[in-house]
Amino acid sequence: MVILGIDPGYAIIGYGIIDTSKKDMVVDYGAITTPKEDSLPVRLEAIDASLKYLFDKFKPEVVAIEELFYFKNQKTIIQVAQARGVIVLACQKYCGNIYEYTPLQIKQALTGQGRAEKAQVQYMVKAILGLNSIPKPDDAADALAVAICHSQTSPSLNQNKV
Amino acid sequence: MVILGIDPGYAIIGYGIIDTSKKDMVVDYGAITTPKEDSLPVRLEAIDASLKYLFDKFKPEVVAIEELFYFKNQKTIIQVAQARGVIVLACQKYCGNIYEYTPLQIKQALTGQGRAEKAQVQYMVKAILGLNSIPKPDDAADALAVAICHSQTSPSLNQNKV
Repeated sequence: MVILGIDPGYAIIGYGIIDTSKKDMVVDYGAITTPKEDSLPVRLEAIDASLKYLFDKFKPEVVAIEELFYFKNQKTIIQVAQARGVIVLACQKYCGNIYEYTPLQIKQALTGQGRAEKAQVQYMVKAILGLNSIPKPDDAADALAVAICHSQTSPSLNQNKV
Repeated sequence: MVILGIDPGYAIIGYGIIDTSKKDMVVDYGAITTPKEDSLPVRLEAIDASLKYLFDKFKPEVVAIEELFYFKNQKTIIQVAQARGVIVLACQKYCGNIYEYTPLQIKQALTGQGRAEKAQVQYMVKAILGLNSIPKPDDAADALAVAICHSQTSPSLNQNKV
């Protein structure tokens, strides 16, 4: 199964693609970035176009995306949520098979404990995927973590399907 | 000039179309609604499709959209902001000429004072457009208000262009 994991954001969106049928599961990972000089509509359009490119190239069967949690900074949350709306719509249009996971579920799936530190989650991403180093940027490692989380969650437990 | 005004939302999105070249300026108004039984991706897809229909039918030259302000309820703001991202992207794809106005700017443009009550703004929408009654639902009246606000703002003052 080819899974696209997404760590949503506005200036930077992490993505990670794994293929669970392969021994070396990692297919690709990285980050979509939008320049802050560009306007909101242009940045949202760029996010949509970049995701379309990833779907066309890697044809993931399923998308696993991190749920958005509350920030202290309301301006930031509005921007990230606006971008996340565009990301979810792109996943719906280009794939249609979407699962959401909370940060707690992701930490739990990767490390066995919901309160794990970020570094511990990143270490497990590297270990599970058999990589030589922790994937960079952090957003890409987070995206791979949500893809791994989905691969480890029983398909029969589909309470995370959206 | 044909202006599409939008009052962003998630369950209900107000729209109002005016043609400033006509004596009877109102072209159409109403609300796009998304059923709460549907999933987030389905509701976002419905918003995009409904906006595409409006752009195809009325071919507005410009979109005026209300800016999102802070709510007390963070869950609500995430949902509305996710929908607003999809709305802004649709306006960019189907029109490309977008202006944003704050609630204060809209009240100021319609009533002459930024602290006007909602009822006073709605009364001015009715009066300016020569309607027999206040447009319903409120979201449609709010959308017409932002369209009127844009029509009354000098094109040379394009600090609201996004």
